[in-house]
Parts: sequence; structure tokens; C-alpha cells
Amino acid sequence: MARTTGSDGEKTEAAVRQAAVSLIARYGYEAMSMRQLAAEVGVQAAALYRYFPTKEDLLFTLMREHMEGLREAWEQARPVGADPAEQLAAYVRNHIAFHIERRHATHVSNMELRSLSPDRLTQILRMRTAYEKELRSILRDGAEAGAFSIDDTGLTAMALIQMMTGVIVWFRPGERLSITEVTATYLSMTMRLVGATTTGEERHVHEHAQLRA
Amino acid sequence: MARTTGSDGEKTEAAVRQAAVSLIARYGYEAMSMRQLAAEVGVQAAALYRYFPTKEDLLFTLMREHMEGLREAWEQARPVGADPAEQLAAYVRNHIAFHIERRHATHVSNMELRSLSPDRLTQILRMRTAYEKELRSILRDGAEAGAFSIDDTGLTAMALIQMMTGVIVWFRPGERLSITEVTATYLSMTMRLVGATTTGEERHVHEHAQLRA
Repeated sequence: MARTTGSDGEKTEAAVRQAAVSLIARYGYEAMSMRQLAAEVGVQAAALYRYFPTKEDLLFTLMREHMEGLREAWEQARPVGADPAEQLAAYVRNHIAFHIERRHATHVSNMELRSLSPDRLTQILRMRTAYEKELRSILRDGAEAGAFSIDDTGLTAMALIQMMTGVIVWFRPGERLSITEVTATYLSMTMRLVGATTTGEERHVHEHAQLRA
Repeated sequence: MARTTGSDGEKTEAAVRQAAVSLIARYGYEAMSMRQLAAEVGVQAAALYRYFPTKEDLLFTLMREHMEGLREAWEQARPVGADPAEQLAAYVRNHIAFHIERRHATHVSNMELRSLSPDRLTQILRMRTAYEKELRSILRDGAEAGAFSIDDTGLTAMALIQMMTGVIVWFRPGERLSITEVTATYLSMTMRLVGATTTGEERHVHEHAQLRA
């Protein structure tokens, strides 16, 4: 659809996307009707179809934009010319910050893949794989440089991503820990998990060994 | 309901539970109708209500039995009188094995909490908390004994549980890795993440330091 409707149209489209994310996160995609969504936004159901000809177009748009946003956030956050440990730290910080800010959209993206057509499912999974590949390549670079000690790069990448995305399940702003504290702890767990040699603790062991030598 | 229907009734009830797990995992709880479930099992919708008077009774039963099963599996698996590292290893092995065997039921238990009444939600969350508390207490015992090095016991427990449960998202039997290999790699990542001093690698560092001394 050409965006001839100007800024009102764009505002409506954004309102539709936002309401859809909330409704799908709450009731599930299959249970949400376009009629219910229109009522939530305060427009006629027919108006929705100008933006999203089918309900699946809407779901696909939400998921594609979620992945595009994640990819763009990482492009912005990635440190150029940094060593693997710094790259990994940037990946962890960006991943946690991005998902905490988009808790409902993350639930939708993780849970409703089953409702995409095979073609679109493939597109979304390709975007995910490309994003996860960035992490695998940081891990591999670190292992080759002797900065990390990793048994299986693929499994380590999945374990880290699921551990980090899991933050959205229990984290609520204003409770015991701030985002900064949570991120610092996850960063420290990540560095241990990959056997990073540049953490304070490991350096201490190394220095200790040298002192005794 | 008294189980006066004998073994046929029990078989039907089990078939209902199994079909419900598949349908909910596929379409979501809100989207599944009792009529659809009855058709899947091959009984009249009225027959379902003998076992589960409401759709939410069914959902609650599925979630409660999942948590009871997990708790029982852990009671069987926990090593009596073992040190924290052995306890942790047993927890990891049991958690991964239990969830890989019950992939759909795990999805249902994790995704459909929103559809429980507040009272029943509290019951399920209490069972979860009790199970997670077992892990926190192993981590705390290990930290106090100097066997683990942990920043935040609560966050470490959540990170480990989400990392381990995440296996069901990507693991499929018969692909690159066996359950045994996946479990061994997760066990090794867990031990690093908690800074365990008794892993082979750490022992090696220690011996190396002594040799050089």
C-alpha cells in the first residue's frame, strides 16, 4: 500500500501494530479477531484491512519489524575493531536492553511462529539465524584467539540467547534490581560460561600462578 | 469426580489430556474449543465435561500435573548426601531430560499461565517457586562451601532454568547431537557459569599452578 494517507494514516498504522502486540500477547494470535483489534484501536474493521489485508500480514509485519529492529540495534551497538570479549559484552548488553523494552513483541515473536505460512516462517527464521550467526561468529573468533574456551559454538550461542531473552519472563522495572544491575550480572555469567580469560577473576588466577612460579 | 468409570474412563481421560496438550501447543488455549478437542479424541463434547467441568479445569490439570511430575522426577533423581556440584549436575540432567520428553506440555505450561484464574495461577506459581528454590538452595550451599562463585543466587537460578528449558525450542531427536551430548555440553556450561571449582578444567589450572610453584 502506498502511504498516501499521510501522517494520520501512519499514526493509525502504528496504533494498530501496538494494539495487536498487546492483544496477541494477552490472548494469543489465533484467539484475536480483526474485529476485536479494530474495536481496541477505535476504527472500523474495514479500515484495518487497508493497512493489513490479512490477519497473517499483520502478524508477519510485527515479526519482521521486530527482527529488523533487533538487527539495526545491533548494527548500531557493535563496536568496530573491538576484541571478542568486548564484542560479546556489546551483544549481551544490546540483546537484553532491546528485549526488556519490547517484552510483549518478544512474546509474540517467540510464540506465534506456528501461525505463519511456510514461506514467511522461512523468512523470519532466516533473519533470526543471521542474528544468531553474529553471536556464533564472535564466539568462534574468541575461541580461535584463545580468549574463550567453548565446547560447542552452536549450543553456547543458543544457551546464551535463551538465558538472556528469559530476562523478560521475570524482570519488572522498579523491583529488586535495576536493568543495569541485571545486565551486569548477566554479563558476568556470560563471561564465565564462555570461559573468558579476560575477566577479573581469571586474570587473578593467572597472576597468582605467575607469582607462585 | 470419583473414578467409577474404571480403566476405560481413565484411558479416555488420558487421551483427552494428551490431545489437549497437542491442540493447545499448536493453536493456543484461547483458540482451542472443547468441541474441537472432543472431535480429536473421538468422543461427544458432553463426555469431556465428565472429566473436566470447564476448559480452565483442563488447563489447570495439565499444568498441575506437569509441575507435580517435575517435582517427583527431581525427588527421584536427587542424590542424597552428595556435594553441591553433584547435586547441581543431577538437577541439570533431570531438568533437561524431563523437558525434552515433554516438549508440548512445557510450551503449554510456560505460555498459557495468562489464562488461569488468579487463584489457580497462584497455586501453579507456588509449585514453580518451590522447584526453583531447590536450585537456589544448591547454588547457595555451593557458594557457602566455596565450591561455586556466584554474584546473585536468584538471577543465576533463573538464568540456568531458562537456558536449560530453552533446549526444547531447538532440540529435535535424530539431528546433529544426541540428548546425552547436549546434556554433557549444558552441564559443562552450567559448571562454568556458577564458577565451579571442581570441574576438570579448573582442576587442571590448579595443578598447573602447583607444578609451576
